[in-house]
This record gives sequence, C-alpha cells and structure tokens, in this order.
Amino acid sequence: MPMEWAFPADQKEGVYRAIYERRDVRHFKAGAIAEEVLNRIIDAGLAAPSVGYMQPWRFVRIQQASLREEIFQLAEHERQQTAAALGERKEEFLRLKTDGIRECAEVIVVLLCDHRERYIFGRRSMPHMDLASASCAIQNMWLAARAEGIGLGWVSLFDPDELRALLKAPNGAEPIAILCLGHVERFDERPLLETAGWDSHRERADVLMTDQWITPTAGYSDKDSL
Amino acid sequence: MPMEWAFPADQKEGVYRAIYERRDVRHFKAGAIAEEVLNRIIDAGLAAPSVGYMQPWRFVRIQQASLREEIFQLAEHERQQTAAALGERKEEFLRLKTDGIRECAEVIVVLLCDHRERYIFGRRSMPHMDLASASCAIQNMWLAARAEGIGLGWVSLFDPDELRALLKAPNGAEPIAILCLGHVERFDERPLLETAGWDSHRERADVLMTDQWITPTAGYSDKDSL
Repeated sequence: MPMEWAFPADQKEGVYRAIYERRDVRHFKAGAIAEEVLNRIIDAGLAAPSVGYMQPWRFVRIQQASLREEIFQLAEHERQQTAAALGERKEEFLRLKTDGIRECAEVIVVLLCDHRERYIFGRRSMPHMDLASASCAIQNMWLAARAEGIGLGWVSLFDPDELRALLKAPNGAEPIAILCLGHVERFDERPLLETAGWDSHRERADVLMTDQWITPTAGYSDKDSL
Repeated sequence: MPMEWAFPADQKEGVYRAIYERRDVRHFKAGAIAEEVLNRIIDAGLAAPSVGYMQPWRFVRIQQASLREEIFQLAEHERQQTAAALGERKEEFLRLKTDGIRECAEVIVVLLCDHRERYIFGRRSMPHMDLASASCAIQNMWLAARAEGIGLGWVSLFDPDELRALLKAPNGAEPIAILCLGHVERFDERPLLETAGWDSHRERADVLMTDQWITPTAGYSDKDSL
C-alpha cells in the first residue's frame, strides 16, 4: 500500500531524531535564546492536541531575577523534602542534578488555566485529560527545542500551591511545570537517570500486552521499591 | 551564536510539519498498518521523558473483535452521557464524530501501570506527573504516526473503571486513552473542532504572560461556558 501521507525520508528522520535525541536537560551554558527561536518553541506547544479543543495551557515567562530565585528556592526545598522521603536512596538522589533553574536562559512556568470545570467534552469521566493535553504541548515544545538545538528540562520538584501564590495565579489555575530552556554543551547519548543507574529503559516487550493485562515480568527493575 | 546542535533545515522542517500537521483523527480508511510501522510508532512512545524515569506507560493492543466492540460500546455510552451533560450544546456535540474505534486498523489502550505509589522522584508533591509522562509518550506516538502517514486519534470518552475491568487490569492500573490508528483519506488542514466551530485557536498572546498571572482577555471564546 502506498503511504501517500508519509513524510519524505529526511523529514521523517528529523521527527525520529527529535524523539530519540531529546533529553531532559539540567545543565546549560551561557547565552540567550533568540526571540524568534523561543517563539517557535512556544508556538509548537500551541499546536498540541487538547481534549474538546480546550487548550488549557497557560505560560508565565519569568524575567525578574528575584522571582526566578524564589522559584529556585521552592524547587530546592522540595528537593530536600523528596530526598527525605526517599529513604535509602536519599544520597543517590541528592547527587543527581535535578534542576537548571538558576543557570538556564529562560524559565517558563506552565499552568493549567482556571475555570476548567466549564469543559466537559472528553472530561466528564476523565477530568484529568486537561493535564494530558498540556503535557502534549510541553512535549511539542521539547521536540521543537531539540530541533532548534535548545535544551529543555521539565522540573516538577515544587509545591504547586506555593508556586501558584508566587505567580499570583487564581486558585483554579494549576502549575504543572517549571520549564528551563537554554543552550547546552551537549545532549547526552542516554537519559541522565539511565546513565546514573537510577532505573533502566523499558523495552516494548516489557510494556506491550495483547487483549488483556498481563503483569509484566520485566517491567520493574530491582530498584523500583522507592 | 552558532546553533551547533540544531538540526539541518530539512529535518527541522520534518519536526515542525509533524507538530503542525498532526490531527486527532476520527475517520479512517481500510488497510492494515505494517507491523514494522506500528512498532516504530510504539517505540517512539517508549522514548518519551518520564518523571524520575518511571516509564509508567503500558499498552494493550486489542486484537479480539468482540473486545473491540465492547470498547466501542463503552465509548458510545459515555458519548451519550457527555451529550446529556452538555445541555444546550448537546445536538452540536452529537453531530461531531468522536471516535473511530470500529473502523480503524488498530486499537491500543494506554494505561498507567500499577504500583505507581513506589515512585516518589518528582512526584512527592506532584503525583499526577505519571499521567504527564504517559501523555508525552502518546504525543511522541502521534507525531511518529503523522510522519509515517498514519492517523491517530485519542479517545477519552470512557469510564476508566469499566475499561480497566474489560482488560482485566489490576485496580492500581489506570486507563488513560483508547488510541485509534489507521490509514486515512487525508489529514485535515485544521483541527476538526475548530472547523466545526466548537472553539477557536488560542494564539501566543492569549496564553503567554510575564512574571505574573494576568487573566487573559482573549483566552476564552464566547462558547466556552459548557
């Protein structure tokens, strides 16, 4: 069967390169992101799918240095809380670099909009599909950034109520990500948490079943009882 | 500044084409998906980022015709429930095509794995980041499918408890998507819900703020009070 809608080979390669060479970046080097590049990355997010076309994503670009520092402190506080909760893996966790908030070129907080209860299409029984949609938007941004040669990290080490208050956002809005963007020395070959031995990559055979759930035998590493 | 990590122009174009020409497809034409193409699409999902590298995604490929029909009936039931909840937009909603479960080549249910409470990294204060990760995986699959010329639709019209029971999945596992994949006559120029007048596209100015939340003036259409 002819695949008349398939992309030509070089464009297809670009899509797969972005998918496989995207990294959750925590190390940045100096240098601003050109405004047109940043706009292309944000616009890529706006082209994401959304449940009932609600487009629940909102972005707050952080430009005040003092505000960025407050956001860093929120993440650092949560990093310590998480470390304490991890028990025997505490020291291993603390050695990992988990944010790039201070050193990246741009910090953008992503929030779900307020008044989301108005949207019922695809959400009556699945209200959390708003988060799913906004996550697709961030993945678009991640892949666009990779194609542009820009690193992006998604930091979720924060208390959402405190971050909401810092941004003076209404109670109905919900912060879901602190995105760090910037130039990089390199994109790692493998995910940092894989290289560091935190966990291992799951293959198709570990996660793909047919017709009914089979508890995967290889689906968990021996390190997952955090 | 040289963008030494940026993709060459044709590969970059591929990434942006996938992002902008991806559609939430509900109309399929006959024809199986080649196994190697389907595998590439699934593997693209497995390359997604995940919080604490937990890789919470699980896939159940539906091959029994009777099971597919039961899944269709679940979606159809929820479609009627949603229509009733929509009030004055009920008829408008019912005219929209909201699934392609019966006619697509492949149905794949995506679930979050069980035992997710074991994972704390990035989830102590933000437990729902597991859904965010799996949504990134689905977006990867969506873009890979587009590059392959394959349409994909994400159906969230279902009761997750009933779908879990159909697949004999454990209580801790959580269905998040019925994915419909198949060949298409065409990819629409614009999202179906935009063409149908359900809602309008939000531009950057509608959703991007600086340093603090500003309630967007253009962020809501006049049709959003569902």
